[in-house]
Amino acid sequence: MAAVARTLRVDLGARAYPILIGPGLIGQAELYRPHLAGHKVMVVTNETVAPLYLGAVRSALAGFEVGEVILPDGEVYKDLATWNLIFDALLAQRFGRDCTILALGGGVVGDMAGFAAACYQRGVDFVQVPTTLLAQVDSSVGGKTGINHASGKNMIGAFHQPRAVIADTDTLQTLPDRELSAGLAEVAKYGLIRDPGFFDWLEAHARPLLDRDTAALTEAIERSCRNKAEVVAADERESGQRALLNLGHSFGHAIEAAAGYGAWLHGEAVAAGMVMAAELSRRLGWIDAPTVARIRALLEAFRLPVGPPASIPTERWLALMAVDKKVLGGSLRLVLLRAVGDAVVTGDFEPGALRAVIDATH
Amino acid sequence: MAAVARTLRVDLGARAYPILIGPGLIGQAELYRPHLAGHKVMVVTNETVAPLYLGAVRSALAGFEVGEVILPDGEVYKDLATWNLIFDALLAQRFGRDCTILALGGGVVGDMAGFAAACYQRGVDFVQVPTTLLAQVDSSVGGKTGINHASGKNMIGAFHQPRAVIADTDTLQTLPDRELSAGLAEVAKYGLIRDPGFFDWLEAHARPLLDRDTAALTEAIERSCRNKAEVVAADERESGQRALLNLGHSFGHAIEAAAGYGAWLHGEAVAAGMVMAAELSRRLGWIDAPTVARIRALLEAFRLPVGPPASIPTERWLALMAVDKKVLGGSLRLVLLRAVGDAVVTGDFEPGALRAVIDATH
Repeated sequence: MAAVARTLRVDLGARAYPILIGPGLIGQAELYRPHLAGHKVMVVTNETVAPLYLGAVRSALAGFEVGEVILPDGEVYKDLATWNLIFDALLAQRFGRDCTILALGGGVVGDMAGFAAACYQRGVDFVQVPTTLLAQVDSSVGGKTGINHASGKNMIGAFHQPRAVIADTDTLQTLPDRELSAGLAEVAKYGLIRDPGFFDWLEAHARPLLDRDTAALTEAIERSCRNKAEVVAADERESGQRALLNLGHSFGHAIEAAAGYGAWLHGEAVAAGMVMAAELSRRLGWIDAPTVARIRALLEAFRLPVGPPASIPTERWLALMAVDKKVLGGSLRLVLLRAVGDAVVTGDFEPGALRAVIDATH
Repeated sequence: MAAVARTLRVDLGARAYPILIGPGLIGQAELYRPHLAGHKVMVVTNETVAPLYLGAVRSALAGFEVGEVILPDGEVYKDLATWNLIFDALLAQRFGRDCTILALGGGVVGDMAGFAAACYQRGVDFVQVPTTLLAQVDSSVGGKTGINHASGKNMIGAFHQPRAVIADTDTLQTLPDRELSAGLAEVAKYGLIRDPGFFDWLEAHARPLLDRDTAALTEAIERSCRNKAEVVAADERESGQRALLNLGHSFGHAIEAAAGYGAWLHGEAVAAGMVMAAELSRRLGWIDAPTVARIRALLEAFRLPVGPPASIPTERWLALMAVDKKVLGGSLRLVLLRAVGDAVVTGDFEPGALRAVIDATH
């Protein structure tokens, strides 16, 4: 029998799409069909995910002409040369404008496949089947796609909304512990930036989440996606509040770049970055020390790092943060906290306070 | 004194933009300023155009922080690796989301710079300063941007509208004869697909156009851009009538690919392709032989090739045309003529007639 999925809708007018969440979804043909316009589907996945789930997806797509591209696994391959492998496959198999690209994997696969869908013949359809918690709660929702440049993460990309997101919670049973925790960093972020009740819920459910309880995971994914969908619907192209989703990311990107892409998982770097953002907010007098401790405690409960490596010199920090996309017209803007559940994007902070937060990491 | 420009508007709602046409525009600071939001401008040009016009553009941009990327010249460089040079420059100079990319050159420069603008940090502003006739009448208008893949022209790209197009007719004085003629192929195309009066005008003005008379060129550019702007405004993303702009292009792309990119100029291949499309239309009984002769005569007057190389085997023709973007769901669709000034997009033609047109080229 078909499992029951919870359905959320991302409200983007003509580009609106559903997010289906629940166990056992990945092999259900009837969940895919409404979102496939043509009869050709190119599944983009990686060498880790393919042996686990490609067969189930292929079975669900019986009747379609299905191609596959199996990319090497890892953030270090999120580059132009690997991206081009997707076009090689599409053209070798003569896929036209009416094809659909289906991303099966985590955030790297989704970002690369989505960006290929944005650009192949100037845009084809795209379906997301995220298989990591991070991808299910964050990268598969909202239409941001892209690849890295040697000088910066996600510097080359596009906004391209999927036709549907199919998030099968069963895929999280095969996820390495470290990646589960990394996904929980982004889950915690939604509580921090706009949903204090969800933050409370997470504090109460850290244990079942780490134990991969399906009900707890489904709830966490649904509430995360609902928060993200509301933000994206209000500000698709990040001219305003969508930037709140970057809490911890300016610091986190600097950590990832300094450590070399792939050494830290994105969510791990974001966790450490959120603690730094909380620290800076405290130094500005916006939140108190017990609030910082509370944030740190939840992330520690999720088995996440709560500080960056001590080895990054202050000047390198500042240089890496200045190349972050959130630098607009030359001044550094950061997401900071006024309370748990209340974040702001601001360039209006004392540079000395930022420097003090960074110095304190050494 | 500032020269007077004729101004057309491309009507795309929030993405509407002006096309300025006339002599002496390239050095006029006041034409650029209304279209530059930030204070950083990255000029993308090539090694042929830079010595001629980069100085004038830089002078006009006094007061802005101006970077430059000088690409190698030629269609063969319209690839991922060369495209990445633009990102290298943007990131090395710490350009943010509020920068503008300014394309100074022909269609290759415009397509690559525009596609970089579409993708840099998921989209930055873009201004076109086309310096070839082809770019002024075609590629700079309408928002199509992209690069080639080894298996097909313009297979990777985006729709990204410029903020403004500044078409200085004086730049055509330095254009090689072959490129002037190639641009006139696209000019003739507008007459053929939708503007019979313009086709008549072109027949009467072939001589002043080849002599690079400023008044004749300005008139031809304005009428071409008006035709293209009307088509694009009605169908920005090519779901319908915009495909008419591809008259001769399915054949032309096959010629370019078979000859090796760069051996034939795009406009030359389109000219030969338009004659083949006219021949196919005649074989289908849609137009008569004198009409084909009239089309051929205008293109010959423009010193353009009116047939493809005889060396392309028929099966290779069909394979190359099948990879063309206009193949939707597997059946080949072509732009054909019902009269001078009346074109249709159709997949409804006898395959034998197409084969006969190709066989006749051997």
